[in-house]
Amino acid sequence: MDFQSIIARRRDGEKHTQEELIFLAKGAADGSVPDYQLTAWLMAAFLNPLNAEETAWLTLAMADSGDRIDLSGIPKPWVDKHSTGGVGDKTSMVLLPLLAACGLTVVKMSGRGLGITGGTVDKLGAIPGFRLDLSPSEMKAQAAKIGLALTGQTPDLAPADKTLYALRDATTTVGSVPLIVSSILSKKLAGGAETVVLDVKCGKGGFMPTVDGATSLADSLAKTGKLCGLNIRIAITDMDQPLGSAVGNAVEVREALRVLKGEQSRFSHLCVELAALTLEASGLQPDRESGRKAAFEALKSGAAASKAQAWFFAQGATVDVLEQPEAMPIAPVRVEVKHEGQPAWIAGLDAKEVGLAVVALGGGRQKKDSVIDLAVGVELHGEIGDKLETGQTMFVVHASTEEKARVAIAQIESAYLLSDTAVPHLDPILRIL
Amino acid sequence: MDFQSIIARRRDGEKHTQEELIFLAKGAADGSVPDYQLTAWLMAAFLNPLNAEETAWLTLAMADSGDRIDLSGIPKPWVDKHSTGGVGDKTSMVLLPLLAACGLTVVKMSGRGLGITGGTVDKLGAIPGFRLDLSPSEMKAQAAKIGLALTGQTPDLAPADKTLYALRDATTTVGSVPLIVSSILSKKLAGGAETVVLDVKCGKGGFMPTVDGATSLADSLAKTGKLCGLNIRIAITDMDQPLGSAVGNAVEVREALRVLKGEQSRFSHLCVELAALTLEASGLQPDRESGRKAAFEALKSGAAASKAQAWFFAQGATVDVLEQPEAMPIAPVRVEVKHEGQPAWIAGLDAKEVGLAVVALGGGRQKKDSVIDLAVGVELHGEIGDKLETGQTMFVVHASTEEKARVAIAQIESAYLLSDTAVPHLDPILRIL
Repeated sequence: MDFQSIIARRRDGEKHTQEELIFLAKGAADGSVPDYQLTAWLMAAFLNPLNAEETAWLTLAMADSGDRIDLSGIPKPWVDKHSTGGVGDKTSMVLLPLLAACGLTVVKMSGRGLGITGGTVDKLGAIPGFRLDLSPSEMKAQAAKIGLALTGQTPDLAPADKTLYALRDATTTVGSVPLIVSSILSKKLAGGAETVVLDVKCGKGGFMPTVDGATSLADSLAKTGKLCGLNIRIAITDMDQPLGSAVGNAVEVREALRVLKGEQSRFSHLCVELAALTLEASGLQPDRESGRKAAFEALKSGAAASKAQAWFFAQGATVDVLEQPEAMPIAPVRVEVKHEGQPAWIAGLDAKEVGLAVVALGGGRQKKDSVIDLAVGVELHGEIGDKLETGQTMFVVHASTEEKARVAIAQIESAYLLSDTAVPHLDPILRIL
Repeated sequence: MDFQSIIARRRDGEKHTQEELIFLAKGAADGSVPDYQLTAWLMAAFLNPLNAEETAWLTLAMADSGDRIDLSGIPKPWVDKHSTGGVGDKTSMVLLPLLAACGLTVVKMSGRGLGITGGTVDKLGAIPGFRLDLSPSEMKAQAAKIGLALTGQTPDLAPADKTLYALRDATTTVGSVPLIVSSILSKKLAGGAETVVLDVKCGKGGFMPTVDGATSLADSLAKTGKLCGLNIRIAITDMDQPLGSAVGNAVEVREALRVLKGEQSRFSHLCVELAALTLEASGLQPDRESGRKAAFEALKSGAAASKAQAWFFAQGATVDVLEQPEAMPIAPVRVEVKHEGQPAWIAGLDAKEVGLAVVALGGGRQKKDSVIDLAVGVELHGEIGDKLETGQTMFVVHASTEEKARVAIAQIESAYLLSDTAVPHLDPILRIL
């Protein structure tokens, strides 16, 4: 097969054959198609998007471009959970042990963060000793033992996606829905899951700023997932304000640990709802309500926290961070900012501004190869709908220097919109597909 | 400046600034923009074409990406002639010495052929010793001495075009009119000419199969040339049937030499018309008719042949091929094919089929790095409108083996369409802009 004719077909908006997309994925994985031809195809695919069937073929081809974890022999249901990412999004850290505690087998490959979108792999890096480079066979062995394993992106799983993702990033072709969908789902397929729950973030701090955009992405994920044989459920959730109170790395792990130990919040509510959706989708619970009850019980009984502890140790943790959260990196400078005006309600809290402030503190990547500071971040003492009393703490900045803290404070203050009349709290879940 | 934002602008069909296109040409020339980003831009530019002003900016930026030959001090007018190429198109070999003999200074950078389109550089390679690697300073010195110099593509002139052309070829983005135009004209500008005459071939054996396509390319060449400060004239000429009698390399040089020595044919008529157009455009002759007379006179008097002789020797020829055309490569197998049926008129002679037959004989490149056989080719003893008598020679195949000759004969025979009623001869010139 000749890659030029494959490029020409995309260029002209014609339909690919499945063989062509297999050739492309193989060529991207083993380097037999040069990058400069792949990027021409990517731009053509951005401007003449793949249809549903082509998207499914590309997804399968990328999943098959490397190893696929075979979970046979391990108790079903096999599930995976994915979020499109956002500011303060530490859902996976709670949900993975929670689902495993409820009886599911959870295997997940996770990515690093870029820009304001944090990555689970970066956050877990705050746990001393925690390994993020499990091989497919280590993943399987650990899943068999404790029902839960997570790894960073490895060259073994979906290598075609690794190549194409880096090239999309370099050529402004990231934002094409069929390319996003095939990238996400190829990794889910390679990871071996049968049931996949996807959390599509919608709002200023996420990938998709509008409900229309998020819905279009969600629809395509649902359709493609089904064509690829996945049992897929999708929640569209709010990312206009940061998720939970902490934004950063170690600070987010600490918040996740508090939720695992029973702390209740808008964020814990989202975790329970997503767990309920997953338990229902996998068939382990008959409906959402019974799933909700099981999840609550696992948090309340300490089963979820115990599972997290087992998970961290299984992946090499050298400290029990559930007992000693202070063993994770702590920033040298901490500045508390109080509300100084009349009592007021939080009417807006711009996730993007908060995210940018944390990136500027060093807690996120400006470029792909940036080194991040795991200790820095912000803790927000309130969310949209909360009332701020005079003198009450609004937020605490964790920084490496006083100067950086000052810059962050100004930016985070600008993220707030205050109202002198009451404002309703917002449900984190916008839609379930 | 950041190349990703330049790609994004093209992707979204927005207008580039001149600085962005200078950044692109510089990046293509010195390698500071990687190929995989250039090809994403090329595909975006294919699907969202540059407008007239952007095309002119890109042309100027590519011309300025390397040296520009400065002809100051050499007698004006300075002219260049370019053909978009076709089957049997040896116009440059006649026109260059003819124009120089008429008093113009002619400086030209020429390309190699690919596919059925032969390249002047390949054909001239049939002249023993002829150099095709003149440096810009050698070009200038030779132009000062004999009024004529030609070189192959050098890394010194328009290096951005060299990079982009190779990438366009690899990514099926060759056929974009603004990209074609900027590629052609950037080399003309770098070569130092002020007056440029372009021969846009139209028909089965050329780049543009339809009159509409050729006219659109011609219009864009005219508009862009003007914006870049060139004095430009364009002829759209027929390429449905091969141009002249010979198709190949050495065989085409022999035909060009016969025309330079006074042989008259449809092909020589085209050469005189293009010369007249150039002489008029450059201002050396007041109108087309006086240009036509001057060109005829130069052919008749032997001035054009003498100029060709001086040119070949100036560029290193070791044999006087005007006197000894047999010193150029000769194929071991020559097969003459006669017309065996009732007398008939040639109603069609498919240039593409003939071109493909010559490529199959080894006379053209199937791939960029193919080695070509300079000796092989075909001589056609008739053109559309000519009558074939029973037993008359139709064509002679020059081949390396009997087997290859057999294959070529079948393909060339299939190119003929015969009629039992008279068919008019066709003017080679379709339109002059």
